[in-house]
Amino acid sequence: MNSRRRLRLGMVGGGEGAFIGAVHRIAARIDDHYELVAGALASEPEKARRSGEALGLASDRNYETYQEMAAAESKRPDGIDVVSIVTPNHIHHDAARCFLEAGIHVICDKPLTTTVKRAQELVTLAGKSGLVFAVTYNYSGYPMVRHARELILGGEIGNVRVIQVEYPQGWLTDLLEASGQKQAAWRTDPQRSGPAGCLGDIGTHAFHLAEFASGQRVAEVAADLATFVEGRLLDDNVNILLRFANGAKGMLWASQVAPGNQNALRLRVYGSKGGIEWSQEQPNDLALTRHGAPTTQLTRSGAGIGAAGAHATRLPGGHPEGYLEAYAQLYTDAAELIRAKNDSRDPDPAAALVPDVRDGARGVGFVSSVLASSSANGAWTGVPA
Amino acid sequence: MNSRRRLRLGMVGGGEGAFIGAVHRIAARIDDHYELVAGALASEPEKARRSGEALGLASDRNYETYQEMAAAESKRPDGIDVVSIVTPNHIHHDAARCFLEAGIHVICDKPLTTTVKRAQELVTLAGKSGLVFAVTYNYSGYPMVRHARELILGGEIGNVRVIQVEYPQGWLTDLLEASGQKQAAWRTDPQRSGPAGCLGDIGTHAFHLAEFASGQRVAEVAADLATFVEGRLLDDNVNILLRFANGAKGMLWASQVAPGNQNALRLRVYGSKGGIEWSQEQPNDLALTRHGAPTTQLTRSGAGIGAAGAHATRLPGGHPEGYLEAYAQLYTDAAELIRAKNDSRDPDPAAALVPDVRDGARGVGFVSSVLASSSANGAWTGVPA
Amino acid sequence: MNSRRRLRLGMVGGGEGAFIGAVHRIAARIDDHYELVAGALASEPEKARRSGEALGLASDRNYETYQEMAAAESKRPDGIDVVSIVTPNHIHHDAARCFLEAGIHVICDKPLTTTVKRAQELVTLAGKSGLVFAVTYNYSGYPMVRHARELILGGEIGNVRVIQVEYPQGWLTDLLEASGQKQAAWRTDPQRSGPAGCLGDIGTHAFHLAEFASGQRVAEVAADLATFVEGRLLDDNVNILLRFANGAKGMLWASQVAPGNQNALRLRVYGSKGGIEWSQEQPNDLALTRHGAPTTQLTRSGAGIGAAGAHATRLPGGHPEGYLEAYAQLYTDAAELIRAKNDSRDPDPAAALVPDVRDGARGVGFVSSVLASSSANGAWTGVPA
Amino acid sequence: MNSRRRLRLGMVGGGEGAFIGAVHRIAARIDDHYELVAGALASEPEKARRSGEALGLASDRNYETYQEMAAAESKRPDGIDVVSIVTPNHIHHDAARCFLEAGIHVICDKPLTTTVKRAQELVTLAGKSGLVFAVTYNYSGYPMVRHARELILGGEIGNVRVIQVEYPQGWLTDLLEASGQKQAAWRTDPQRSGPAGCLGDIGTHAFHLAEFASGQRVAEVAADLATFVEGRLLDDNVNILLRFANGAKGMLWASQVAPGNQNALRLRVYGSKGGIEWSQEQPNDLALTRHGAPTTQLTRSGAGIGAAGAHATRLPGGHPEGYLEAYAQLYTDAAELIRAKNDSRDPDPAAALVPDVRDGARGVGFVSSVLASSSANGAWTGVPA
Repeated sequence: MNSRRRLRLGMVGGGEGAFIGAVHRIAARIDDHYELVAGALASEPEKARRSGEALGLASDRNYETYQEMAAAESKRPDGIDVVSIVTPNHIHHDAARCFLEAGIHVICDKPLTTTVKRAQELVTLAGKSGLVFAVTYNYSGYPMVRHARELILGGEIGNVRVIQVEYPQGWLTDLLEASGQKQAAWRTDPQRSGPAGCLGDIGTHAFHLAEFASGQRVAEVAADLATFVEGRLLDDNVNILLRFANGAKGMLWASQVAPGNQNALRLRVYGSKGGIEWSQEQPNDLALTRHGAPTTQLTRSGAGIGAAGAHATRLPGGHPEGYLEAYAQLYTDAAELIRAKNDSRDPDPAAALVPDVRDGARGVGFVSSVLASSSANGAWTGVPA
Repeated sequence: MNSRRRLRLGMVGGGEGAFIGAVHRIAARIDDHYELVAGALASEPEKARRSGEALGLASDRNYETYQEMAAAESKRPDGIDVVSIVTPNHIHHDAARCFLEAGIHVICDKPLTTTVKRAQELVTLAGKSGLVFAVTYNYSGYPMVRHARELILGGEIGNVRVIQVEYPQGWLTDLLEASGQKQAAWRTDPQRSGPAGCLGDIGTHAFHLAEFASGQRVAEVAADLATFVEGRLLDDNVNILLRFANGAKGMLWASQVAPGNQNALRLRVYGSKGGIEWSQEQPNDLALTRHGAPTTQLTRSGAGIGAAGAHATRLPGGHPEGYLEAYAQLYTDAAELIRAKNDSRDPDPAAALVPDVRDGARGVGFVSSVLASSSANGAWTGVPA
Repeated sequence: MNSRRRLRLGMVGGGEGAFIGAVHRIAARIDDHYELVAGALASEPEKARRSGEALGLASDRNYETYQEMAAAESKRPDGIDVVSIVTPNHIHHDAARCFLEAGIHVICDKPLTTTVKRAQELVTLAGKSGLVFAVTYNYSGYPMVRHARELILGGEIGNVRVIQVEYPQGWLTDLLEASGQKQAAWRTDPQRSGPAGCLGDIGTHAFHLAEFASGQRVAEVAADLATFVEGRLLDDNVNILLRFANGAKGMLWASQVAPGNQNALRLRVYGSKGGIEWSQEQPNDLALTRHGAPTTQLTRSGAGIGAAGAHATRLPGGHPEGYLEAYAQLYTDAAELIRAKNDSRDPDPAAALVPDVRDGARGVGFVSSVLASSSANGAWTGVPA
Repeated sequence: MNSRRRLRLGMVGGGEGAFIGAVHRIAARIDDHYELVAGALASEPEKARRSGEALGLASDRNYETYQEMAAAESKRPDGIDVVSIVTPNHIHHDAARCFLEAGIHVICDKPLTTTVKRAQELVTLAGKSGLVFAVTYNYSGYPMVRHARELILGGEIGNVRVIQVEYPQGWLTDLLEASGQKQAAWRTDPQRSGPAGCLGDIGTHAFHLAEFASGQRVAEVAADLATFVEGRLLDDNVNILLRFANGAKGMLWASQVAPGNQNALRLRVYGSKGGIEWSQEQPNDLALTRHGAPTTQLTRSGAGIGAAGAHATRLPGGHPEGYLEAYAQLYTDAAELIRAKNDSRDPDPAAALVPDVRDGARGVGFVSSVLASSSANGAWTGVPA
C-alpha cells in the first residue's frame, strides 16, 4: 500500500494547544500516506516556530506565515504535495486560495468559509486549478456511514421519507469562553468563527452526514436558533425542520448546551422499506431494519458489509475503530485522489467519496440559509444548490 | 391497601379485538382497587353482548349502549363508581358527558375529544360536577417519569432550556389500514380519529410527557406534518418546533412510518445545570447528568429515587416494571382521588399527578394548533392555555 | 378468556412486609384467573390476622395456621381450588404436603425444600395425588425465554455447546441482615433458608433458566462457594463449572455481593449454528445470531416470534412487559392445568411449560450437589436425575 | 512530544496477509515515536522480500532472516533501537533471545513463549541485558482499563472480592482452519501456537487484563477445557475457576465458538465498597458503582478521569478511541522506557505500566497451569509466581 513514496504534507494552523491540528497529523500518519515536512502552525511567529520545532520540522520549512510557505514550497523540487488548513474558520478562505494559486492540493477543515460568496470563489478557483480540494467532514470517513450510504443508495430501505439527525454536546453549558479555554474561545467568537456558532461548528457536520449517508438533498429549512448562555455571542442551540428535494422530511438538532452529551452525532433514516440508525459514539455498529423483520445489528467488518464499508476499515470486527481512523480515511482517500491526479489516471471510486470543495460550499450555503430562516422567525428558506 | 372495598367499574368500548380495553382492565386489576361490574363494550349490540359475557359481566349489567348503562347504573344502589371510556376518539366526548351528567366519575382515554370546543365543554362540565375526570396519558404513570419530574421541578438540572421529545413507531410503514387490521383502521380514519392521525394517536402522548416531566408549558408551535403512505387519509409523520413559555426551545417528532421503532417514546430535557434522558422502552432507567460530572444511571427503586418515584412502583430494582404497571398507576391514583372525594378529604398529593380533564383539553388544543400551523406552512401558532 | 369462574386461591405466608407474597397476589390478578379468598399469611397469629384483614379476607377464611386452612377449606363447598405457598423455604415442604393431602392444588415458591429427601417425598406425593403442583421459577414465564427455548429446541442454533448463565446482585454487599431488614434476615439464616444462601435464593433460578431455555440437563458440577461478608452464615458468591449430559459445558455465577447489579440474571447459549443472549433486566429483547450472519434483535411480539412466545405475552412490541407479567404467566398456565384436570381434558401444551414439582426437586438436587462439590474442594459431583 | 528523533524500529514477522503485523505498524506510527527501517517479515525469503518492498524498506535492511537482521543492525551506527516480534508463537522465544543478545530492545507479542522454561530463560536474559522488553497485552493500553486500575488500586471499590473476566469470540464456530484461512490455520496448529489454542490466543489476554486492572494475582485455577469443533487440534472453549492470592474468587471464560461475539473481552471487578465493569467493544466507557449509590458511567476524557487514564488518551470525550490507539499506547510507553534507558533517567511512571517480560512469563505460567488442571479433571493447580 505504501510502497509509493509518502506525500509531502504542509500544515497551516494546528500549533500549540490546538486540538484539531493534532488530530489531522495523527490521521495523516495512520495509513502512512503522508509525511509532514512543512508548516505555518500559528498566527504568532514565535508560537509558530516553537510549534514546528516541537514537531521536528526542518527550520527552513518551519514558516512564520502560510503565504511564505506557499511561495517557498511551490518552488522547491521536494515541495509539499498538499497542505492541510486547520485554522479557525476565518482564515480558511484566504489560505486555501493562496495554496490553490501556488498549485498545491488542499485539505481544508470545515466550515469551508464564513460566507457563501467566498465559498463560491473557492469552488471556482479549485475547479479551474484541477487540484484536489478535500474538506474534512470527517464523520463521512466512518466505515458504517459509508455502508449506510451504500445500503440506502442501493435501495435497501426503499424511498427515503424521514431523516432525523442530531448532534448534541454539553461542553458549552456554561460561559466556558470567559475562562479563556482556547477551543471555546474561538468557536464562540464571531471574528474567528463567522456568524454561526454551534450551527457552524457541529450543525454543518450533521447536515453533511444527513446528505452524504442518505443521498438526499435538503431543499429548504425552517430554523429556530437560540443562545441560551448569557453573554455568549453566537448560537448554542439549533432546531431546524428540513424538507428534502425528493419530498422527504426531517429535523436537525445541534446543541452545545445539552449536558450528558459529549459528541453525540446520530443519524436515522427511514424509507418505504426499512430504516437505519447510526451513532458516532458507537461508530462500529449500524442498525438496519427491513420493515416487517427484526432489527439487524450490522458491525464493521462483520457479516453483510459491502465494498464501501470494507474500503474504509483496517481491523476485523470487534476491534473498535474510532474517530482517528475515520479521519484517517479522508486523508487516505485524498491521497488516492492526489496520486491519481499526479498519475493522470482515474482514482479508486471508493476514494472519490471524500468530501470536496463543493460539499464544503454546500455546508456554507446551509449555514447561510439557516441563519436567514431563523432571522425571519423560522420562515422556510431555500438552500442554495 | 385494599382493605377498603374495591371501586365498581364500568367500561365503554374495549370489546372483542380491542387492544386498549384489555390494557385498561389489567391496569384496573393490578393494584386491586377496582372490580369490573358493568359494560357497554361495543357499538354493535351483539358484539357488545358477546364481549361482556366473555368478561363474566352479569347479564343485566352487560349493556347495549353506554346511555343505557349510565341511566341504569346511576340508579342502582350498587351502581358503578366510575366509568372507563376506551372507545375510538369520536365517542369520547358524548360518552364522558353522559356519565358526568349521571354523576359518575370518569376515566377517559386520550385524545380527550376531536375538537377544542368539545374539550372545553367537558372541562366546564367536569368542573361543575365536582367529579374526578382522569385522562390516561399513561406514560406519566411510569415511576422514572415521576422521578424526572421531581428532579426537574426540584431544580436539579437548573433552568430548563432544551426539551427534545420523540415518539417513533414503524407499524404503519405500509397501508396497513387497507388490510382491515382493526387498530390501523380506526386510527387512520378521520371519522373515528378526528382530524389528526399520528399526531393525535401518539404525538399527544409526547406533548403531555414533555410538559408533565419538565413542568414547562408549550407556548407556540411550528409544524410540518406529512402523509407518506399513499392512500392514507391522515398524517403519519409529525415534525414540530416548540417554544416554551419560559423561553425553552424544543422539538417534537412523532412518526408511524419509522421502521425499526416499535413504541420508542423518548424524552430529553436539558437545563443550565444538567440534563435527563428517559426512554419508554427501557422505562426502569433514567439518566441524570449534572454538568461537569459523569452521567448517573438512576434505576427504579434504586439508590437516589425520591418520593414521587417510590409512590409509583411495586418492586425492588432490577425487577422490571412495564407498560401495564404504569397504566395501573393512573388507575390507582384515580382510585385515591375518587375515594378522597367520597370521603370528603384531601387526596394523597402524589396521586394528584394523574392527568385530568384540563390536561386532556390541553392536548386537544395542542393538536389543533399543530394542524393550524402545518396548514399555514409552519407559521408559529400559539397553543391555547 | 375469563368467562369461566375464577379459581379460588388461598395463600400461606406473604403477610405484612413480605415482598414475594405481594408479587404472587398481583401475578394471580393480572390475567384474572384467580380470586384470593383464604389465607394463613404469617406464622404469628396476630400478624396473620392483621394481614388477612388488610387484604379483605373474610374473617372465617383468615386462618391462624395453614393446617387449619387446609382442613377447613377442603370441607367447604366453595373451598379453595389451589394454594400458593410463599413462606420462607423451611416451611415449603410441610405446607405443600398438608395441602396435597387435603386434595388441593399447589403453587409453591422455590427452592421446593431444603433437602433432597423431602423434595423427593413431595414428588412422590404429588404424583400419587394427581394434583397440579407448580413451582414458581418465575423467569421461565418471560415470553422471550419461552421463545429462546422454542428456538433452541427447534434446532435454530444447532447442537448446544456452551451455556453461560449468571445471576449477580449487589444488595448483600454489607451485612444487611444485621440491620434486621426482613428480606436479608431470612435469606441468610440457615434455619429458614436451609444450607444454601445465594445458591438457593438465586443460583437455583439461574440453574432452572439454563436448563429450561436450552433443553439440556446438567450432569455434573464443580463448585467454589464463598462467603465474603464477615459474620454471614451462608454463601454469598457462587462459582460453578457445569458439564451437561449432551457434552455441552458451561459456567454459573451467582452473587449477592456484586455492587452495580440489581437482579442481573443473564443467559447465553451457543451451538454449532448460532447463539442466543437474554438478560432479565431487558426482558423484552432476545439477541439471536446465526453463525456467519449479523446479530438479530428479536423483540417480544415483534417480527419472528413463534407460538411459545406469543402464548406468554399480552401487549404489542415496544410496550414493555416485566417481572409481574412473567410471574403472572406461571399463574395463568397453572390455571389452565388446574382447569384441564378439573375438566378431565388435556391442557394447552403451551401451558404445560410451567415448572412442576419435579423441576422443583431437580433444583434441590442441584443445590445439594453444589454444596457437596464445594465442600470437596470443587470435585466434580453428579446432579441427581 | 516528538521533537526527539523517532526510534528506529525493526520487525520480525508481520508480512503479507498477517493481521497483527499491520496493527503493530499502525500502532507504532500513531504517536510518531517510531520509524520502521528494517524487517525480516516472513519465514519464506521471497515473501519476506516482497513484504519489505511493499512497506518501502531499503533493500539492505529487508532481511531474509531475523538472525541476519540482528547481526547486521547491531553493527550499523543507525541500527534499529528496538525490534517488534509479531510472528506465530513458536518463534517468539528464539527471536527475542537473538535480539536481546544483540543488545536490541524488544517488543514481543503474547503469549511470550510456548513453555514456561523458555519464558523463564527470557526473563533471566532480559534481566541481565538491562534492555526494555515489552509484551503486547494490548488491552492494558486502553485508557479506561488504566483508569479502572487506578480506581481499584486507590481503594475506590474496597477490598476486591469477585473478579469475572470473559473473552468470547465466534469466528471458529466451524473448522475454519480447514479452509486455509491464515489466521485460523496457525492459531489452531500446535506446531505454531504451542499446546494451547483459544487459551493461549485470547485466554491469556483475559488473564492479564484481570490481574492488571485489579492488582490481584491468581493463586490457583480449576479448569475445564473443551474442543467442540470436530477435527480441531487445540482447545476452543475455556472455563476456569480462579482463586486469587488475597482471597478473591473469580471465573474466566474464553471461547472461539460463541457466535454473536466478535471480540467481546469484558471485565467486572467487585469489592467491599463497589464495583466496576468494562467491555472492550465499548472501550471508552467504564461503569463504576459505589455500593449504595447509582451506577456512574465514566467516559474517556470525561469528568472524573485521573492521571492514568489521561496519560493514555489523545482525544476529548465522545470522540471514540479504539483498538489501534490502545495498541499505540503500549508503543508510546515502550518508547518512553527505551528513551529513559538511553538517557539513564527514570521513566515516566505512567509509562511503566506497559507489560514486560515477567508479565509475559506469568501468562505462560498461567497457560501451563490451566492445561495441567484441565488434564487433571479440574484439580486446583497453582500458578507459578
